Amino acid sequence: MQRRVGVWLFGARGSVATTTVAGAAALAHGAPPAGVVTEQPAFAGAGLIPIDRLVFGGHDPSDTPLSKQVERLVAGGVLPPGLDGLIAAELAETERNLVVLPVADTQDELVRRMAEDIKAFRLRNDLEHVVAINVASTEPPYEVRYADLAELREALKATRIVSEERGGKASGAAEAGHEAAGDAEAGREAAEQALPPSSLGALAAFEAGAAYVDFTPSTSIRPQVVRDWAVERQLPYGGQDAKTGETLVKSVLAPMFTARALPVQAWSGTNLLGGGDGATLADPHAAESKSVSKERVLTELLGGEVPGEVHIDYVDPLGDWKTAWDHVMFSGFLGVRMTLQFTWQGCDSALAAPLVLDLARLSALALERGHVGAMPFLGFYFKDPVESTEHALTRQYDELVRWVQEC
Amino acid sequence: MQRRVGVWLFGARGSVATTTVAGAAALAHGAPPAGVVTEQPAFAGAGLIPIDRLVFGGHDPSDTPLSKQVERLVAGGVLPPGLDGLIAAELAETERNLVVLPVADTQDELVRRMAEDIKAFRLRNDLEHVVAINVASTEPPYEVRYADLAELREALKATRIVSEERGGKASGAAEAGHEAAGDAEAGREAAEQALPPSSLGALAAFEAGAAYVDFTPSTSIRPQVVRDWAVERQLPYGGQDAKTGETLVKSVLAPMFTARALPVQAWSGTNLLGGGDGATLADPHAAESKSVSKERVLTELLGGEVPGEVHIDYVDPLGDWKTAWDHVMFSGFLGVRMTLQFTWQGCDSALAAPLVLDLARLSALALERGHVGAMPFLGFYFKDPVESTEHALTRQYDELVRWVQEC
Amino acid sequence: MQRRVGVWLFGARGSVATTTVAGAAALAHGAPPAGVVTEQPAFAGAGLIPIDRLVFGGHDPSDTPLSKQVERLVAGGVLPPGLDGLIAAELAETERNLVVLPVADTQDELVRRMAEDIKAFRLRNDLEHVVAINVASTEPPYEVRYADLAELREALKATRIVSEERGGKASGAAEAGHEAAGDAEAGREAAEQALPPSSLGALAAFEAGAAYVDFTPSTSIRPQVVRDWAVERQLPYGGQDAKTGETLVKSVLAPMFTARALPVQAWSGTNLLGGGDGATLADPHAAESKSVSKERVLTELLGGEVPGEVHIDYVDPLGDWKTAWDHVMFSGFLGVRMTLQFTWQGCDSALAAPLVLDLARLSALALERGHVGAMPFLGFYFKDPVESTEHALTRQYDELVRWVQEC
Amino acid sequence: MQRRVGVWLFGARGSVATTTVAGAAALAHGAPPAGVVTEQPAFAGAGLIPIDRLVFGGHDPSDTPLSKQVERLVAGGVLPPGLDGLIAAELAETERNLVVLPVADTQDELVRRMAEDIKAFRLRNDLEHVVAINVASTEPPYEVRYADLAELREALKATRIVSEERGGKASGAAEAGHEAAGDAEAGREAAEQALPPSSLGALAAFEAGAAYVDFTPSTSIRPQVVRDWAVERQLPYGGQDAKTGETLVKSVLAPMFTARALPVQAWSGTNLLGGGDGATLADPHAAESKSVSKERVLTELLGGEVPGEVHIDYVDPLGDWKTAWDHVMFSGFLGVRMTLQFTWQGCDSALAAPLVLDLARLSALALERGHVGAMPFLGFYFKDPVESTEHALTRQYDELVRWVQEC
Ligand SMILES: NC(=O)c1ccc[n+]([C@@H]2O[C@H](COP(=O)([O-])OP(=O)(O)OC[C@H]3O[C@@H](n4cnc5c(N)ncnc54)[C@H](O)[C@@H]3O)[C@@H](O)[C@H]2O)c1
Ligand SMILES: NC(=O)c1ccc[n+]([C@@H]2O[C@H](COP(=O)([O-])OP(=O)(O)OC[C@H]3O[C@@H](n4cnc5c(N)ncnc54)[C@H](O)[C@@H]3O)[C@@H](O)[C@H]2O)c1
Ligand SMILES: NC(=O)c1ccc[n+]([C@@H]2O[C@H](COP(=O)([O-])OP(=O)(O)OC[C@H]3O[C@@H](n4cnc5c(N)ncnc54)[C@H](O)[C@@H]3O)[C@@H](O)[C@H]2O)c1
Ligand SMILES: NC(=O)c1ccc[n+]([C@@H]2O[C@H](COP(=O)([O-])OP(=O)(O)OC[C@H]3O[C@@H](n4cnc5c(N)ncnc54)[C@H](O)[C@@H]3O)[C@@H](O)[C@H]2O)c1
Ligand code: NA
Ligand code: NA
Repeated sequence: MQRRVGVWLFGARGSVATTTVAGAAALAHGAPPAGVVTEQPAFAGAGLIPIDRLVFGGHDPSDTPLSKQVERLVAGGVLPPGLDGLIAAELAETERNLVVLPVADTQDELVRRMAEDIKAFRLRNDLEHVVAINVASTEPPYEVRYADLAELREALKATRIVSEERGGKASGAAEAGHEAAGDAEAGREAAEQALPPSSLGALAAFEAGAAYVDFTPSTSIRPQVVRDWAVERQLPYGGQDAKTGETLVKSVLAPMFTARALPVQAWSGTNLLGGGDGATLADPHAAESKSVSKERVLTELLGGEVPGEVHIDYVDPLGDWKTAWDHVMFSGFLGVRMTLQFTWQGCDSALAAPLVLDLARLSALALERGHVGAMPFLGFYFKDPVESTEHALTRQYDELVRWVQEC
Repeated sequence: MQRRVGVWLFGARGSVATTTVAGAAALAHGAPPAGVVTEQPAFAGAGLIPIDRLVFGGHDPSDTPLSKQVERLVAGGVLPPGLDGLIAAELAETERNLVVLPVADTQDELVRRMAEDIKAFRLRNDLEHVVAINVASTEPPYEVRYADLAELREALKATRIVSEERGGKASGAAEAGHEAAGDAEAGREAAEQALPPSSLGALAAFEAGAAYVDFTPSTSIRPQVVRDWAVERQLPYGGQDAKTGETLVKSVLAPMFTARALPVQAWSGTNLLGGGDGATLADPHAAESKSVSKERVLTELLGGEVPGEVHIDYVDPLGDWKTAWDHVMFSGFLGVRMTLQFTWQGCDSALAAPLVLDLARLSALALERGHVGAMPFLGFYFKDPVESTEHALTRQYDELVRWVQEC
Repeated sequence: MQRRVGVWLFGARGSVATTTVAGAAALAHGAPPAGVVTEQPAFAGAGLIPIDRLVFGGHDPSDTPLSKQVERLVAGGVLPPGLDGLIAAELAETERNLVVLPVADTQDELVRRMAEDIKAFRLRNDLEHVVAINVASTEPPYEVRYADLAELREALKATRIVSEERGGKASGAAEAGHEAAGDAEAGREAAEQALPPSSLGALAAFEAGAAYVDFTPSTSIRPQVVRDWAVERQLPYGGQDAKTGETLVKSVLAPMFTARALPVQAWSGTNLLGGGDGATLADPHAAESKSVSKERVLTELLGGEVPGEVHIDYVDPLGDWKTAWDHVMFSGFLGVRMTLQFTWQGCDSALAAPLVLDLARLSALALERGHVGAMPFLGFYFKDPVESTEHALTRQYDELVRWVQEC
Repeated sequence: MQRRVGVWLFGARGSVATTTVAGAAALAHGAPPAGVVTEQPAFAGAGLIPIDRLVFGGHDPSDTPLSKQVERLVAGGVLPPGLDGLIAAELAETERNLVVLPVADTQDELVRRMAEDIKAFRLRNDLEHVVAINVASTEPPYEVRYADLAELREALKATRIVSEERGGKASGAAEAGHEAAGDAEAGREAAEQALPPSSLGALAAFEAGAAYVDFTPSTSIRPQVVRDWAVERQLPYGGQDAKTGETLVKSVLAPMFTARALPVQAWSGTNLLGGGDGATLADPHAAESKSVSKERVLTELLGGEVPGEVHIDYVDPLGDWKTAWDHVMFSGFLGVRMTLQFTWQGCDSALAAPLVLDLARLSALALERGHVGAMPFLGFYFKDPVESTEHALTRQYDELVRWVQEC
């Protein structure tokens, strides 16, 4: 029997997740794999798992049926008309693998329950490997300070979860609602959680023997202790914050200015977006995580800070579409001032989904190869690549191809 | 005494040439070297000739004083106010090295006279190397068919130049005015010249022992026989058609689409420009050379032809400024259609001049290293790099740096 | 029984016509009348015929079923998904009123047969008025010189139509294929037709007692003799070339510069479009008609010619969508140079269709009011308004409202 | 002897004021009056005072010489190179009429002293009329509540000004520093001033018998009591917040959508600007005044609120240049979604200065005609026109011309 790989999605009923699941099914029905990088010739022959051998499952606090989400995305022009009918069987199959976020009294217990869900998914579907990918709503930034794994384990046990927030839905509101044991004043403060939901998900993945990739700018694998946990379990992790739009373009334009020794004077950007992601980012606290990883790219590519703000505006009528306008002012020989402006009009979920497929295949290969710890060779996909400061897209691509072809 | 390198400019009184000469002088007065790639750390330690050791000379059919051109460029905002006064001495020095295109009866004789001008420049200024760079007006395309050097030499001797066009000003009109010996119907046909002016310049450079780089899309070193001539004289040549604006941006954006497996459906562009170059390109015949090298970039980067036209419009009031708008339509996952548009507003001469300095320094290094024949490692600078099909800017940059650092 | 008004469409199976018919049906099913100007409060109380009292018919050389066209427009995102099913009955009803362009030996006979089709439509549907609107493919420009109606009538009788072109499909190719009696060399020359198809359509309308409005830049009512014919029949006519995109925007921006005394130095534009209209305009000959009426607007609004070209590029993958980029360079106080750029992304047929409904209702009102001759008060709708030089949109709007409210 | 009119500028050393004074001088030296609306034929014959009969004076807390400001504006490309030399005499003459903001113990006394400065200016220069125009830095919003003039007069007398802020420089910081009599806790609160500086300026103008026009969005003539004061003194007033860039364009585009019945779904804008005005607006408190008047335009033009934010970003390297990008999403027939985007790149002071000349001439005409109270016919110039809700530019223009030509 042929091997199969499981893809566990945190945020499994969101737009990115739904487009990924529906898209994989559409490919099986013959749709061309536009946007799937690993389908290019450079990736052939490395033993990547075929897309039709991927099995999807995941956690989500919501219980809206996947088929409803597909309908919504068809209506919004993200998925082609008629797709819902075509892939009904595949959707139903995935639906059986989706689990509502479990309830627990402590964060420690929550991690255990989430890990059990993932293990059950593996068993039930007879999967060779499981790759967990976080495509849940972006969380606000969160500062974690634990000296080592032991200290973290203590804290997880100590953190009691108050009832109305059990399950830990990430959102502007999610920062509240957690209660550290012995704290009378209760969970008004996010800081009182041992870890935010995204990091709990990462731990659960590791506990279940899965690789973990963060598609979002949330806390997840940022804390050193979470990374240590992965290494202890001998597993690979990667991320963070997929670059699919404005930042993708920045990651090729900024190296152009650098290569040509053209000093960038100011770089300003405005992002307009609707959809679920837009609604989340309308909360300035959540948007902060995103802005931080967006800005890091420019600073690192240009070798220093440049003036200019980045706005993220929620514009509901745009739906799943995003428009970004960037204005770059640079100076040339003898100080002459010039500008480059671009407008990007993209459908975020359609840009993200094929990358989720790539990341699943590549992480499965890393598991196969016994890779442990950070996967910096996946930097090509991220605004804020773990353990890498290379942001120039072409160099990142070449690095990825080298890794894939290496053995 | 310190070594000095000569830079012989074909088109020495044009905007690019004047900005180069004025800019080098400004740098000597302390202006920061914005846009000069070879001033970056990656290029240190390779023994590149310092910019203040470059000596400029050149040919031009026009005799407008260089100082007048500088004034014009100051008024047009290309050069900073007050520069004309500051660098008067340097301009006067270069002015002494400028020569009106010589007059001759045959193309063979013309090449010899031009070569003598270059040799005299070398001797008079005690130069270690000379690098000739073509920044003359773009010529219309020109088909050359000679089986070998012997055949070409015959043709050059046979081509008689009619009086009013002696000196071979390149322009839409320049195609006429040449007369092949024994041809009664005379020089109405460009095909009757053995070679167009740009190629004669290349031969003259080689005869004078100079390296040759073509900054324009003209014929120059395109014919195999001209390249053979360079090799016979054991000299390096490079080019063609500097990428400084729209195409520069294309050369980073197109690889982005390819790397992400996003099929480009259509790529359309409109270029608005004034100035001398704009006036030349208002002639559709001359613009053809430019369009051809512009289009090659996209086709090679995207791995095939894409629909979409490229317009080059002469808009006199824009002066030395160029505005380019590009509209790229691409499709993502499951065929969703998206667009990227950019608007580039640049000052062409200010973008070109520092690259001319780079090319002079790098070609002098090639001479130093005894490099013979094509210099594909200069592809970073060109829309249509000789003997290279790599157009992705970051890869071209890395290749250049590798060559510079190699010994 | 309630009165009904007939709308006879030349080009009845094209995108604009189909969107008009489908749209009117959608409105009857409760869709909001976005884009229908005459549904605004300012137009209430003037006795305009309700949209659900309009009955559609028309000529087209093609016989593709209307329902097929609707399907194509739904697939292209012009019409909402599911509309085809909803309005099947209405489409079938209109389908019965569509007639293939008749065949005739002379243009005189052709006019007569077309007029009979229109009269039959009126009779069969018991219509109070008929308004004919030309939404057929744009023809190349055509010069007509007849001193008076008598001379024109002679020429129509004399023009023999060669068999393969009977029906007079307008297109780049349509200029050929007509044969003037006694002309041995036959119909290679458009000049040999007495009148091009669009003008024949206008005459047929007048013969059938219908008002006539030209939505296109074709010849139709341009010749004085055609206008004389309308007056002889005591009928109103209007047009030409609906302004729905780039020109619409120009018609508000240009008056802004004029009102503020800001001299426009250059105005350049690039239009990218696919679809049937795009395919027609890919023929430079047909595009000429369009460019001429586009340019007239700017020249008249700015009080003189300004430098700058207007490109119309056929970009097949854009389908029914059009993207226009305009670059305006203007100067302010003491000559400072500034720019305004805009990008318009519109769906042409969706912009055009509600205007066709407006024009039908307004022309029916003109018939009702006994208006004879040109309808300059419809200038609001057109790039090249008959007998009007007012192009400023707000003024045109106010003039229209005044006329509607006048009695 | 010929009559002369005085123009008293609050903010007389700012960019707008300096460009106005320098520009009037340049016109006298033969520069063409680009941007001066009242130089158009429609305004001839109405007896407007010639520009060379205007005499400038004004208040400013700063004492940077006008000639220094002109140099700065020349360096920044706002004023043409060489202008400083050409108009030295005129600048010196105006310099003699500039007064540092006077010092006073109470706001009542401050108004009196400012009025004395204006009266002295009138006397010294033998002026027929004086028009005061506020071009001082934008103040934060300020709520004023006085039932009537008597109450206001009481409050002015009662407001004691603390020493370090005497003179009342408007700025983010200026809100502090005023002390109401008897208030121990002192002037931390803006609310403790009877009136903000801009309103004091308006009162001073009225006390000196001058017309008053507010070019800014500050409080000035917003309070009813200030308007009552003007009427008591039988004087005209106008404003507010000149429309010179993004809002100017909005005021023609929004009526286009309305006239065509195209529902605007979202309108988003980003403004990038440097310069003194940019620095002031970098203070979100001051920017609030600006945003409020910017948004009013759209809401009133579109007949309701539309989603979308307006950003004002301070980008220091842009200097006196402003770039605005607007993204308008609208829907057409049957809900199809379309977009219009524009990018405006303008030099604010160069756009503003000719309008200041217009407003001076038109207000002088109003004085001449004995007009008392609000001047709504000046709405053409303003984002937030007093006593008018008409924002469509063409209609405003027509209204202005009608008023000018009326007698
Ligand atoms: N689409 C892109 O191009 C792109 C690029 C970079 C990053 N991202 C990130 O991907 C994520 C998903 O984007 P989307 O557009 O699908 O958003 P979405 O709002 O449509 O979906 C998010 C889903 O996450 C679920 N969720 C919330 N908290 C959760 C938790 N604690 N555990 C599990 N699920 C949880 C929500 O119920 C929802 O179904 C966002 O964080 C976004 O910032 C997307
Ligand atoms: N500026 C850029 O960014 C850029 C980029 C790519 C290529 N180029 C090319 O560089 C060239 C120069 O551009 P420019 O803006 O300086 O143009 P320009 O018109 O200002 O100058 C061209 C000069 O060449 C001279 N000339 C004409 N025929 C000649 C001949 N046969 N021999 C010697 N000189 C001759 C002319 O008299 C003129 O002085 C053009 O071919 C242009 O296409 C420029
Ligand atoms: N859509 C807009 O916004 C807009 C604006 C201004 C003008 N127009 C004009 O409207 C016209 C229609 O545009 P479209 O997009 O529907 O084009 P289309 O190509 O989809 O349709 C044109 C139709 O005309 C038919 N036709 C050709 N010759 C004919 C003839 N002699 N008599 C009758 N029918 C004939 C064709 O068979 C076709 O069905 C074009 O001329 C276009 O330039 C459209
Ligand atoms: N330039 C435009 O297009 C435009 C358009 C609309 C409104 N405005 C407004 O015009 C004003 C001037 O703009 P600018 O670019 O000249 O700004 P600026 O910062 O260059 O000049 C403002 C001047 O006002 C002075 N000032 C501050 N407080 C004062 C007070 N209480 N009394 C008198 N003077 C005072 C400052 O010292 C400074 O010299 C701003 O409020 C701006 O928002 C300008
Ligand atoms: Na790159
Ligand atoms: Na208008």
